[in-house]
Amino acid sequence: MFKKVCIIGCGLIGSSIARAIRKKNLSIKIVSCNRSDSTNKKVIELKIVDDSNSDIKKMVEGSDLIIIATPLSSYEDVILKIKNSLKSGSILTDVGSVKENVIGLIEKNISKDISWISSHPIAGTEESGPEAGLTELFENRWCILTPSKKANDKDIQVLKTFWKKIGCKVDIMDAKQHDYILSITSHIPHLIAYNIVNTTLNVQDKKESDVVKYSAGGLRDFTRIAASNPIMWRDIFIQNKKNMSEMIDNFIKNLKDLKEAIENDDGKKLEEIFTKTKKIRKEIVKAGQDVGKPDFGRK
Amino acid sequence: MFKKVCIIGCGLIGSSIARAIRKKNLSIKIVSCNRSDSTNKKVIELKIVDDSNSDIKKMVEGSDLIIIATPLSSYEDVILKIKNSLKSGSILTDVGSVKENVIGLIEKNISKDISWISSHPIAGTEESGPEAGLTELFENRWCILTPSKKANDKDIQVLKTFWKKIGCKVDIMDAKQHDYILSITSHIPHLIAYNIVNTTLNVQDKKESDVVKYSAGGLRDFTRIAASNPIMWRDIFIQNKKNMSEMIDNFIKNLKDLKEAIENDDGKKLEEIFTKTKKIRKEIVKAGQDVGKPDFGRK
Repeated sequence: MFKKVCIIGCGLIGSSIARAIRKKNLSIKIVSCNRSDSTNKKVIELKIVDDSNSDIKKMVEGSDLIIIATPLSSYEDVILKIKNSLKSGSILTDVGSVKENVIGLIEKNISKDISWISSHPIAGTEESGPEAGLTELFENRWCILTPSKKANDKDIQVLKTFWKKIGCKVDIMDAKQHDYILSITSHIPHLIAYNIVNTTLNVQDKKESDVVKYSAGGLRDFTRIAASNPIMWRDIFIQNKKNMSEMIDNFIKNLKDLKEAIENDDGKKLEEIFTKTKKIRKEIVKAGQDVGKPDFGRK
Repeated sequence: MFKKVCIIGCGLIGSSIARAIRKKNLSIKIVSCNRSDSTNKKVIELKIVDDSNSDIKKMVEGSDLIIIATPLSSYEDVILKIKNSLKSGSILTDVGSVKENVIGLIEKNISKDISWISSHPIAGTEESGPEAGLTELFENRWCILTPSKKANDKDIQVLKTFWKKIGCKVDIMDAKQHDYILSITSHIPHLIAYNIVNTTLNVQDKKESDVVKYSAGGLRDFTRIAASNPIMWRDIFIQNKKNMSEMIDNFIKNLKDLKEAIENDDGKKLEEIFTKTKKIRKEIVKAGQDVGKPDFGRK
């Protein structure tokens, strides 16, 4: 499908893409660029890529597909470094979780003969780094494409096919809608998970062992989400701050309503809300985005 | 171990206990009492119990161990009905998630020759009803005992052995401490999960299908928790309202701090908090309360 693919940032997502490209035979050559020499050494040793180097221009040169898989706050630095090394006719994409700001930033820095098509494969685990990557990470997951004005239709189709071959189902969406939907389905859940674990730690310094011991009552599930990459999430929240603020306000308003219902013994109201929330679970299982099997101890 | 065990309320937890008693051979006879005739019929058909009837006095009569496994709001009704049918020397327990209020309520209604020892096995799934029960639900989970003044030491040891044989690790704690710790490790996480799913539904009525489609980004995990039994959780929150209110206030205060940091681009503060929350995950895995294997699609 490609002669050379360059992955900038071979972490959990980047290395999972490299592994999937290799398995599905989608490129003759796969290279990556990482700032740290030890990571470059490691991804070659693990045979995740054919070559890897901190010299970003050298790695990007001659690539048909370039995938930015670094934290959002590094995009400006990355694009300024690679803009003059991109091959005419190549496709540039990323895997970031927020779109509106970065699409314009990159668009204004590249020439017309580069197709800049932003991607967001909605997949991940709480692990980080190239060793944590998984060939099958994208199987049956959605990938949202948000093409820029500098993307041509043919290349959008090529990139769509690429993600499908990697295992994804592909949707196309504009950046504003993407950032709004993802604030609901991903960014707010992560912030809330971080907040609940942080609240727990703050009130419970002396009893940390009890909190750990009895975490199977519900907290456990939040700690998994709150173990995700701190740098990545810091950047996502800041880049999507408008949607985050609005959703946090909604969340707090609803939580205060629940608090009032609890304090007033308003069981009827609580039961109504909890019955409503139960329904959406069934739809998620039906849509294949989770399994219906209960999770009772994960052994 | 016992001649007759009576389980009042053969739902997810009650039927799991019955199944485990049967498998480990802990009682000659197992009976249950359910308000609905169809449930009584079902648990006999499924061979979960030997007998089951809505006549609570008849079921309780002659039992050595009586386990209340109904929602907390039904305890008063239950105890008033069974108080004169309890066999002298029998052990009375429950499986409720809040202790302080109910311990006194039951204590004042029973005679001195009954050992009232409240139990809380910290286990469950998002499913409800007798068909959802699992023999192995309690394996490696903690069970907290909060004995009342009417419990004698010998019976505490007997009940401890019972839970251990069913698979639990057992701790003894006073009611106040139990309700505080559990508000952190279980009750607040559930309330927050209900609240996030409810907030999602409210803001997103027109885009429900998108929310479902892209739920693998994090929301999915909350919907599992928010699919738990509405009646049970309604009662838990109301019974533990003092701790809930305090924790909700802490939670909102911390969430407002995060919002401010996001709005001020304070990446340093966010990163510090998210790095701290990552640590507790490792301790939970180390304590055997979850597995370290990443969860990436549950197929």
